[in-house]
Amino acid sequence: MSREHRQPRLAVDCIIRVRRRLVFVRRRNEPRGLALPGGFVDHGETVEDAVRREMREETGLELGDLRQFHVYSDPHRDPRCHCVSVVFTADGIGDPRAGDDAASITLVEPDTIPFAELVFDHAQIVRDYLAQMPARRSAVDQAG
Amino acid sequence: MSREHRQPRLAVDCIIRVRRRLVFVRRRNEPRGLALPGGFVDHGETVEDAVRREMREETGLELGDLRQFHVYSDPHRDPRCHCVSVVFTADGIGDPRAGDDAASITLVEPDTIPFAELVFDHAQIVRDYLAQMPARRSAVDQAG
Repeated sequence: MSREHRQPRLAVDCIIRVRRRLVFVRRRNEPRGLALPGGFVDHGETVEDAVRREMREETGLELGDLRQFHVYSDPHRDPRCHCVSVVFTADGIGDPRAGDDAASITLVEPDTIPFAELVFDHAQIVRDYLAQMPARRSAVDQAG
Repeated sequence: MSREHRQPRLAVDCIIRVRRRLVFVRRRNEPRGLALPGGFVDHGETVEDAVRREMREETGLELGDLRQFHVYSDPHRDPRCHCVSVVFTADGIGDPRAGDDAASITLVEPDTIPFAELVFDHAQIVRDYLAQMPARRSAVDQAG
């Protein structure tokens, strides 16, 4: 663990539930399209602090029931650089409002997600989420 | 997601089961002590490829039933740098032999782990593993 060498960049993304809908941002910058809200991790902060900061900046939402979901690290998942993302799930608290890199925010029902519009590997991430968390989805449905 | 700035380094560590025992390495370099085997992720490789490569280099083991466990990212978890670790669990395949950064390899029964000798935040990681995976441990016990 002692060699210095070129490394991937480290990001966080979050699947945010607001009642029964999922939060997506329409990106202001390339690649254009819909994405899960996310951003890069700063030196000196935990990935949990990073995702709370980025979600506040990009969506105006605070996060409840924050949980790590999965790490996505394919070198080709992001066309800009090799970027490893720690993906979280959370409940959004507050009123969503677009900020930072987001031109606008869209809340989407789980059964109407426009997968073809999702950039990066976010279609795969959302499919993994919907496939692996039926219990979670049921609980959300019951609360919505 | 467009700003360039200083970021944490990205590592992988693995909780490897060999029959009912867990694999630790006695470190050749500072900090001295026992650690889970691990290493840094290279640009262009997935975290799964990184952990398979590092475990092969450091322990001589191939990995079966490889699963992501949790990401540990406290800025003070590693005295050398801010280093975020994606921790995996796996079954070790083959005969362990020390290589690379490891001076020697120790296989430890889950109920005799020398927590005071573990460096970094590895005592916490192993405690989290033992606390959160009773079903997994039972399966290992049955097979051991």
